[in-house]
Amino acid sequence: MSSKLWEKSVTVDHDVESYTVGRDREMDLYLAPYDVLGSLVHITMLQSIGLLTKPELETLTAELRNIYKVIEQGDFKIEDDIEDVHSQVELMLTRKLGDIGKKIHSGRSRNDQVLVDLKLYIRSRIEDVTKAMTGLFNVLIEQSERYKDVLMPGYTHLQVAMPSSFGLWFGAYAESLVDDLTVLRAAYSVTNRNPLGSAAGYGSSFPLNRTMTTRLLGFDSMDYNVVYAQMGRGKTERVVAQALGGIAATIAKLSFDACMFNSQNFGFIKLPDEYTTGSSIMPHKKNPDVFELTRAKCNKLQALPYEITLITNNLPSGYFRDLQLIKENFLPAFDSLIEIISMVTQMLSEVKVNTEILKDSRYSLMFSVEEVNRLTLEGVPFRDAYKQVGLAIERGEFVPPTEVHHTHEGSIGNLYNDAVKALYDKVLSQFDFTTYHNALNSLLGR
Amino acid sequence: MSSKLWEKSVTVDHDVESYTVGRDREMDLYLAPYDVLGSLVHITMLQSIGLLTKPELETLTAELRNIYKVIEQGDFKIEDDIEDVHSQVELMLTRKLGDIGKKIHSGRSRNDQVLVDLKLYIRSRIEDVTKAMTGLFNVLIEQSERYKDVLMPGYTHLQVAMPSSFGLWFGAYAESLVDDLTVLRAAYSVTNRNPLGSAAGYGSSFPLNRTMTTRLLGFDSMDYNVVYAQMGRGKTERVVAQALGGIAATIAKLSFDACMFNSQNFGFIKLPDEYTTGSSIMPHKKNPDVFELTRAKCNKLQALPYEITLITNNLPSGYFRDLQLIKENFLPAFDSLIEIISMVTQMLSEVKVNTEILKDSRYSLMFSVEEVNRLTLEGVPFRDAYKQVGLAIERGEFVPPTEVHHTHEGSIGNLYNDAVKALYDKVLSQFDFTTYHNALNSLLGR
Amino acid sequence: MSSKLWEKSVTVDHDVESYTVGRDREMDLYLAPYDVLGSLVHITMLQSIGLLTKPELETLTAELRNIYKVIEQGDFKIEDDIEDVHSQVELMLTRKLGDIGKKIHSGRSRNDQVLVDLKLYIRSRIEDVTKAMTGLFNVLIEQSERYKDVLMPGYTHLQVAMPSSFGLWFGAYAESLVDDLTVLRAAYSVTNRNPLGSAAGYGSSFPLNRTMTTRLLGFDSMDYNVVYAQMGRGKTERVVAQALGGIAATIAKLSFDACMFNSQNFGFIKLPDEYTTGSSIMPHKKNPDVFELTRAKCNKLQALPYEITLITNNLPSGYFRDLQLIKENFLPAFDSLIEIISMVTQMLSEVKVNTEILKDSRYSLMFSVEEVNRLTLEGVPFRDAYKQVGLAIERGEFVPPTEVHHTHEGSIGNLYNDAVKALYDKVLSQFDFTTYHNALNSLLGR
Amino acid sequence: MSSKLWEKSVTVDHDVESYTVGRDREMDLYLAPYDVLGSLVHITMLQSIGLLTKPELETLTAELRNIYKVIEQGDFKIEDDIEDVHSQVELMLTRKLGDIGKKIHSGRSRNDQVLVDLKLYIRSRIEDVTKAMTGLFNVLIEQSERYKDVLMPGYTHLQVAMPSSFGLWFGAYAESLVDDLTVLRAAYSVTNRNPLGSAAGYGSSFPLNRTMTTRLLGFDSMDYNVVYAQMGRGKTERVVAQALGGIAATIAKLSFDACMFNSQNFGFIKLPDEYTTGSSIMPHKKNPDVFELTRAKCNKLQALPYEITLITNNLPSGYFRDLQLIKENFLPAFDSLIEIISMVTQMLSEVKVNTEILKDSRYSLMFSVEEVNRLTLEGVPFRDAYKQVGLAIERGEFVPPTEVHHTHEGSIGNLYNDAVKALYDKVLSQFDFTTYHNALNSLLGR
Repeated sequence: MSSKLWEKSVTVDHDVESYTVGRDREMDLYLAPYDVLGSLVHITMLQSIGLLTKPELETLTAELRNIYKVIEQGDFKIEDDIEDVHSQVELMLTRKLGDIGKKIHSGRSRNDQVLVDLKLYIRSRIEDVTKAMTGLFNVLIEQSERYKDVLMPGYTHLQVAMPSSFGLWFGAYAESLVDDLTVLRAAYSVTNRNPLGSAAGYGSSFPLNRTMTTRLLGFDSMDYNVVYAQMGRGKTERVVAQALGGIAATIAKLSFDACMFNSQNFGFIKLPDEYTTGSSIMPHKKNPDVFELTRAKCNKLQALPYEITLITNNLPSGYFRDLQLIKENFLPAFDSLIEIISMVTQMLSEVKVNTEILKDSRYSLMFSVEEVNRLTLEGVPFRDAYKQVGLAIERGEFVPPTEVHHTHEGSIGNLYNDAVKALYDKVLSQFDFTTYHNALNSLLGR
Repeated sequence: MSSKLWEKSVTVDHDVESYTVGRDREMDLYLAPYDVLGSLVHITMLQSIGLLTKPELETLTAELRNIYKVIEQGDFKIEDDIEDVHSQVELMLTRKLGDIGKKIHSGRSRNDQVLVDLKLYIRSRIEDVTKAMTGLFNVLIEQSERYKDVLMPGYTHLQVAMPSSFGLWFGAYAESLVDDLTVLRAAYSVTNRNPLGSAAGYGSSFPLNRTMTTRLLGFDSMDYNVVYAQMGRGKTERVVAQALGGIAATIAKLSFDACMFNSQNFGFIKLPDEYTTGSSIMPHKKNPDVFELTRAKCNKLQALPYEITLITNNLPSGYFRDLQLIKENFLPAFDSLIEIISMVTQMLSEVKVNTEILKDSRYSLMFSVEEVNRLTLEGVPFRDAYKQVGLAIERGEFVPPTEVHHTHEGSIGNLYNDAVKALYDKVLSQFDFTTYHNALNSLLGR
Repeated sequence: MSSKLWEKSVTVDHDVESYTVGRDREMDLYLAPYDVLGSLVHITMLQSIGLLTKPELETLTAELRNIYKVIEQGDFKIEDDIEDVHSQVELMLTRKLGDIGKKIHSGRSRNDQVLVDLKLYIRSRIEDVTKAMTGLFNVLIEQSERYKDVLMPGYTHLQVAMPSSFGLWFGAYAESLVDDLTVLRAAYSVTNRNPLGSAAGYGSSFPLNRTMTTRLLGFDSMDYNVVYAQMGRGKTERVVAQALGGIAATIAKLSFDACMFNSQNFGFIKLPDEYTTGSSIMPHKKNPDVFELTRAKCNKLQALPYEITLITNNLPSGYFRDLQLIKENFLPAFDSLIEIISMVTQMLSEVKVNTEILKDSRYSLMFSVEEVNRLTLEGVPFRDAYKQVGLAIERGEFVPPTEVHHTHEGSIGNLYNDAVKALYDKVLSQFDFTTYHNALNSLLGR
Repeated sequence: MSSKLWEKSVTVDHDVESYTVGRDREMDLYLAPYDVLGSLVHITMLQSIGLLTKPELETLTAELRNIYKVIEQGDFKIEDDIEDVHSQVELMLTRKLGDIGKKIHSGRSRNDQVLVDLKLYIRSRIEDVTKAMTGLFNVLIEQSERYKDVLMPGYTHLQVAMPSSFGLWFGAYAESLVDDLTVLRAAYSVTNRNPLGSAAGYGSSFPLNRTMTTRLLGFDSMDYNVVYAQMGRGKTERVVAQALGGIAATIAKLSFDACMFNSQNFGFIKLPDEYTTGSSIMPHKKNPDVFELTRAKCNKLQALPYEITLITNNLPSGYFRDLQLIKENFLPAFDSLIEIISMVTQMLSEVKVNTEILKDSRYSLMFSVEEVNRLTLEGVPFRDAYKQVGLAIERGEFVPPTEVHHTHEGSIGNLYNDAVKALYDKVLSQFDFTTYHNALNSLLGR
């Protein structure tokens, strides 16, 4: 049996095949379960418009559910001379069911098959990302509350500037995740639309019922215009990669802080020994490799949208094979980010903070603004108070106050973590995962 | 009078000054009205916590509203030896009102002043962008409806593939704007939070009322954590630049299509003469310069988030002067994008399409899928129909059908533009501009 | 035996290990032969300064040469609990030779081991790239000569503009490779400097002889300053990646042309059937997938320097673990580029050009400049001739000439391919590969 | 008189004009002197092939030299309704000389005019960059020598690791400039080739003598193939921008170090007061703004090649108007980089280093490797010495040695700055600026 759906009489040269297929079969394994789900919906719709009989639908449905289980159990493979996941599934069906198996392809192109696979994959992985994020968010809030009274220097220009606290530091990264989640929510909206039925990007002369497949797959809406459905390839990935990159940017910054604060020149935090490594030549070192690799992994993720842009930019409308290459770094990016988030969550829950930082006299000048403000509250005009304190410092006569009373919203003494948490929960609640869970369970007869 | 708030005894070398100020005063003109609005709110709040008297508040409010009018009339200038917009406004106040003018600075840093200026500026410019987008969206939908029956070849791999239509082509770009608007909406959410009160990034010992300033400025919520408020600088710009870049990506692709379709090798569209230019050496040329420059301008906009990432990446938390440089390409990006959108809107409303394309025999093979599908609907298994048509083509015996009947949602015969428009309107309605308009009008006594 | 050189008493958590090692062991296989070469040189030098005895040197040399053969035969593996290539080689030595094996590490850090491995690897792979490039260059020149008399339209703005030829088209890409090779030559210079002896980036208290190791490894010079030697990591990769990306940019542009010229709307070239693929739904399609994937692979390569920049930017001086991540996309980039070049070379040697293009009347206007010039040579002022021809075209009265006489250097009738070839050879001759071949052969006793 | 060479009967709409011209007239001022030089050469060649008479040549030459002087004196302007520099120069000639002025355009297109202008501009500005670099290089070497005996901690992973010195630190950045200069040299080679005579990218039917113009402009060689000459646009800028970005990367890293070392947590260096700025709210701050802005300016420069890539990528061969947009950030990049280098040179020559760093006990452990090596030199196997010292540190019993004896090439005690300087001079000598200076002086009759 011919392994390539489109192969006619000319045999494709082997080198060309390995060049064009590349790592695509490996990539298609990420998509396998979603491909089966897409086919389950497609045949249900085909039967509804008279292109399959009811018994055919039942037979195919049962077998596709079997294949889904094979995939779930980790036993699905794309055979050596089979080009992609779509062909492999069709092959398994025809082996078992004969010619009926071929009928799942009517009214579809591999273009809209892979489009819907990608959308279903991304939707599911965004859900996984939100779960990991929520774990990290909670640890950050917990640590912010735990250490809300431990002061540390706040820097501007990497100069000791004003009193800050570990409560503020941990809490800031929690709140950063709120905005990252907001951007991810938009990426989820762009994703959660149904391209199935766009065929090769110009629709089909079959009387497809796309409203039905949209509902059965639990999508918010269709990508209505079939040309746009195809145009969404590459674009969806870019939008999602930017959202993932935004989360990565937050964690990269946190990692930079952690590496720096772990340096002997700061000594603000201490990483557990399990997360540090030694040196082959310097026996006293306890290096924050895990945070360094986290930073690098995050920076690599931030490069992903640029790669996608370079691949897709200045291509006219319509499908091009170029799009295949996006998969290689895009599909595994979710696993990578989730692994990063999990590792950071674990590390942050175990990190120890130094409660004695401010005993070091190098930090005493950071209380100068407190003094300026105290004078202002006593009625000295701000600019005069500022000059007075500045000159006292220049003369070496400045005596820092010993206490900090910051009371406003979001300050040292009033972190407002509850409001941050409420905001996070509000954004999270805008992801409606239940609708699609129910739809997919129903498809699988669960 | 000293022109720099922080200058003490040492005079800064002139070269250093021109190096550090750079184009920042020019950039600050973009922010001027927003700086006044921020000050109006700040003093109202200062009075409420007893740091200004009621008469002081009234005097300052009146004068700030005057300055706002000066800015509106285009008469505001940052004087030669004045460092930035904040200093200029303070100078104008003290010139007129004496020492009271200095009091607007209490409980603020230039860091949170510029943060709130940026947020107010971005919020307002995002509104402008949505207006321009809506104009373009409407023209695209109109043209899609106007030309819904004009067929054109649909390409995959830049190979003539299947029948498409100008209705689909215009409509696809309209729908692309829906997803771009969704991403912009997220950027708007990230923007529409109040950083005022974060001072230099570590809050203030004054008993500021940030809830009050949030309400008075019409923000959705605060950037609660003061460390996060500062961390939002650079991040907000990146998120917004990615959203602007997404719109630019849509228009760049449209422009590529337009330039290609305008080529003698396609001849699908004809640009009005006013939008083409000639050649100094080839008298017959009518070059699509305007679309080419549009494409280049859009590609340049797409580079902006990378520039911001390079400037901000791997900086630890806390303010750095590096952030100033983001302004230079970021602040004018809105004007640039709005100009692009306006020009494209105008061009697309005047572009002529070629209604006779399909008379060219090179396009007849694109009806082969129609024939395959017709056979399938008559009961021939899809794979067999596919082979049968393929072999007919190889033998040169294929006769194309002459009509196209695509009926499903989003296809040639059923564009679903109403649904696309409803989706656009739904996303647009999620931008609540009225709240902030009312807040700002109230501040200005209007 | 402990598998990690730096491991002391604390056992590193398994997850952390898999997180930090990542794909690094796989990457280290690229470096294995070079690691052995570095060790061979290092021990020769250690013996010269009295840190090894002559018999120890001989024993170690023999065994390292054995390991090198194992690597050449493809039988080298990094065992499951061994951290990296350096540890694996040391393990193999100590298994066979006992404690002597440990001595190869004296006066080195893994930092300068991996530095020298990378330099040796890159140097060798740049040589491979030049070989592949030369093959492509030769085919391009051959095709340029073969088709020097076949005219084609030259485009500006994708508008038919002036006569061009396939001789010019093929030749242009050949000449592009000359400049790409020039940039690669600079990257080679940056690479071909010896970092060995820099230890962890601050040198060693051992009396190392770096002049000796520089000579034995066939390097042009040292990276003298040991802090700079370390700073070269990431930087070397970036410079090399930019050079590889430059070659990729040339091939991407060629691929874009090829895909477009293969479209039915141009029909300028015909790709051999083996390099085209079909469609699962459109039986008449012969898609230029190989050129499309080539373009995408090239665009992905162009993203590599950005990724490296994002990983390394804004890191202070000194080693960071972040650098490890660069390997993952950088080391395989050479194989990828060489595969691309080979495929393009093969395709271009088989591509057919259409010798009948100009029979299509749509191209006749491109001779208008010829006519303007003819009039000018007859004495009509250029601007007047230009207007005269332009108006004739507007009136539909322009009759194109039927022949093209371009005689100047680099024009249709005078391609100057010999000069281009001479320039290519000159740049190529500036890569001195012989010196290092001799040095390495000598090290291996060959 | 018509201000646009190509304008025929249709008047171009004003908005379109301002949209397409954009900042191009401003950009063209950078190119004005080079445009005149290109014209001087072109007419000399035109006379040699009989297209101008000797008296015409003399008249035009004299007037072009006058215009060159006007440009040198800063009095050249592009008038309001004149499109570009080429038209302005032609206008000035025809105003003075009448119809002869029009003749300078024969056998050229604006495409090859701007190509040659860009090449001449870049060549000259690269020379300026090398001069600035040499100044910085010399200061770095001087400071390296001055502070060669002042030890500082060397870091890996931002952990205190081993002894380093300010001699090494300054010297490392000097050596980094050597490699940057090597890459710039390649960019210079790519630049220093003559595109004149390629007309609109397909050559000319005039019997141009490109060998002659190549010699008269002092170019190394031609861009032979006329299609490649045009293809070099965008590519040359990218290659040059990558080279400028490489220098910027070196300075950005230096700036990061300087900002960090200036922090109270390091205190390694002290910037002169003139290069620091204060805070409006924290009177004790002395912020390293100049180094921060330098870092940001350098990071912005590093974004430039990405922008150029985005504008040019996936464009087929042949001229597109898109290329115009590259000028806006590319042409001013030289001034920006030269200003950066000058400022850093000045700062580094005045920076003070802290000679007492090592009195701080936190740095004592960095001598552990010294101890390991000492034991090894005494005969203890390295791995055993390493363990012994490691355990002593764990028990708190490690006593650091008090002296450092590093003797090998490039180490603390043996910086090898002379070799670095020799290498720099060797690379610099490969730029042959004299040839082109002589050529241009001859053209200008100087």
